[in-house]
Amino acid sequence: MIETPYLLFLGDAPDPLAAKVAQGIRDWRPDNAVGQFRMDGCKADMKLPDMTLAEAKAAGAKTLVIGVANRGGVISQAWKKVLIAALEEGFDLASGLHNLLRDEPDLKAVAEATGRKLHDVRVPSVKYPIANGEKRTGKRCLAVGTDCSVGKMYTALAMDRVMKERGLKSSFRATGQTGILITGEGVPLDAVIADFMAGAVEWLTPDNDADHWDMIEGQGSLFHVSYSGVTMALVHGGQPDALVICHEPTRDHMRGLPGYKLPSLEAVRDMALELAKVANPDCRVIGVSVNTQHLGEDEARAYLAEVEARMGLPAVDPYRHGADRLVDALAVI
Amino acid sequence: MIETPYLLFLGDAPDPLAAKVAQGIRDWRPDNAVGQFRMDGCKADMKLPDMTLAEAKAAGAKTLVIGVANRGGVISQAWKKVLIAALEEGFDLASGLHNLLRDEPDLKAVAEATGRKLHDVRVPSVKYPIANGEKRTGKRCLAVGTDCSVGKMYTALAMDRVMKERGLKSSFRATGQTGILITGEGVPLDAVIADFMAGAVEWLTPDNDADHWDMIEGQGSLFHVSYSGVTMALVHGGQPDALVICHEPTRDHMRGLPGYKLPSLEAVRDMALELAKVANPDCRVIGVSVNTQHLGEDEARAYLAEVEARMGLPAVDPYRHGADRLVDALAVI
Repeated sequence: MIETPYLLFLGDAPDPLAAKVAQGIRDWRPDNAVGQFRMDGCKADMKLPDMTLAEAKAAGAKTLVIGVANRGGVISQAWKKVLIAALEEGFDLASGLHNLLRDEPDLKAVAEATGRKLHDVRVPSVKYPIANGEKRTGKRCLAVGTDCSVGKMYTALAMDRVMKERGLKSSFRATGQTGILITGEGVPLDAVIADFMAGAVEWLTPDNDADHWDMIEGQGSLFHVSYSGVTMALVHGGQPDALVICHEPTRDHMRGLPGYKLPSLEAVRDMALELAKVANPDCRVIGVSVNTQHLGEDEARAYLAEVEARMGLPAVDPYRHGADRLVDALAVI
Repeated sequence: MIETPYLLFLGDAPDPLAAKVAQGIRDWRPDNAVGQFRMDGCKADMKLPDMTLAEAKAAGAKTLVIGVANRGGVISQAWKKVLIAALEEGFDLASGLHNLLRDEPDLKAVAEATGRKLHDVRVPSVKYPIANGEKRTGKRCLAVGTDCSVGKMYTALAMDRVMKERGLKSSFRATGQTGILITGEGVPLDAVIADFMAGAVEWLTPDNDADHWDMIEGQGSLFHVSYSGVTMALVHGGQPDALVICHEPTRDHMRGLPGYKLPSLEAVRDMALELAKVANPDCRVIGVSVNTQHLGEDEARAYLAEVEARMGLPAVDPYRHGADRLVDALAVI
């Protein structure tokens, strides 16, 4: 668990897209960020107060989060001066970069000397159990995709927000780096040892109040041959009561797999539901979440109407039109 | 890759079952074992020549394989004297125990001093790639189970043996500890990091001659909630042309999961085939392999006949009646 609130480190971000982790925190957990730290030449701006380390410390920040990825995912020497000063000021550091904080001898030495923590969220820090498949209390919704990177994290976060706005009990459960940095906790599922994947998901979504929903971030796709095993662990370990099918309608082929066509929404519905019923016979598919960012407004509305009629399920773009109808659909459970 | 041939270390095995790794090597790769090493009180016997370390060395043995598991899977102090002497005589050591050879400071120090290798086959020694899903040459058969421990390794080994007896090209591809020790190579799939599981299976079953078959050892079950992600990686990474469904008909519930019933053979057939077709649209289910060890001969024959009629596929117990008919069935591919 990463201590909040954060100071968001934007470094020398070459463009706004490079700061997508910081943007995710800003969009979904604004209370988790007291300010931003930008270096000369930084091209990203979260519209948060620019702060020095001392100012952020005074404002209560506990952790400096690396909210930016530079080319190659490495920790540049230009950043080191700030990171070391942050440790010395009493901040923990958190990062989702491939280049681990703990693998930098200078950062490691200063963290040890100052007693601060280095959170590399790509690396599991928990010894997860083997899944036991026992029925847990509370309810769970899992986003399953036709492909990778179709909006599963966004969908789960958007549904969680609507639940909270309505005063309902909900927890977003992060299963990837960005999600973990947004919420300060979660399981980096793609880095877990195979035997413990489903157990890690059980651990992440424990017994809860009967009217509490876990909104579980999906990973990969049952139809993506590189990562389908990770998705499977979510379907079985997550023991979902509700599935939301996520889709991006303009893809030619599966991400990173030229020659692999996307499955139909019907194929994902049927496959995910049959597999989910192994762990929870009462599971239902409750809606379709479509990422329409590459469609115009009329085109998007027409596509959503067609999917809704065809599937007999609410079909929405939660970014464009909100996640309310997906949350409404949970009422059938 | 572990150097063969082996000297099989049976230690102080409390009963024959404790030496099942040695038994697997003896049954399936007898040429890999020049002899056995037994300590006082050993209750297992592979019917191989009992040899001292020096005798085994003279007979050409390269590796001492720990073919026995004692309670708790630990490396006992009673074994250490032999293991250290073996390193000093020039043997490598190989083990599938949870207690790693490399975690024993004395073994590690002697191995370093003597320049010998410690093979802990539970731990991957290769940096596997992310799966790319590209079509590979050669053919692949995967054993998929209704449950864990229903005879998938046995089925693949038995089919591989029949192929070789017929002068056909075949490789058994090990995906678990015992299989790796039997053949000297393979992937300990349950210990691979999630993102690389399918890539590890691709790595294990590379391009080959058009008429060559990989007989891939299965793991877990698509219907076993603890390990289904591992199975999924085999179905997609293995890119199978042929599936054999493996079953044990007397189980009450899924192994380790009270309350979870076994799926029907039809459910496994349909689910595994639909998923396998994502990676290989030409995949077919070619037969059913039934572990009838808990049935009498008449009962076994009646059960197999019923399954064969119901499924329209050859149904055999390869232990009881041989794997010939499963190999015959590959001809449809």
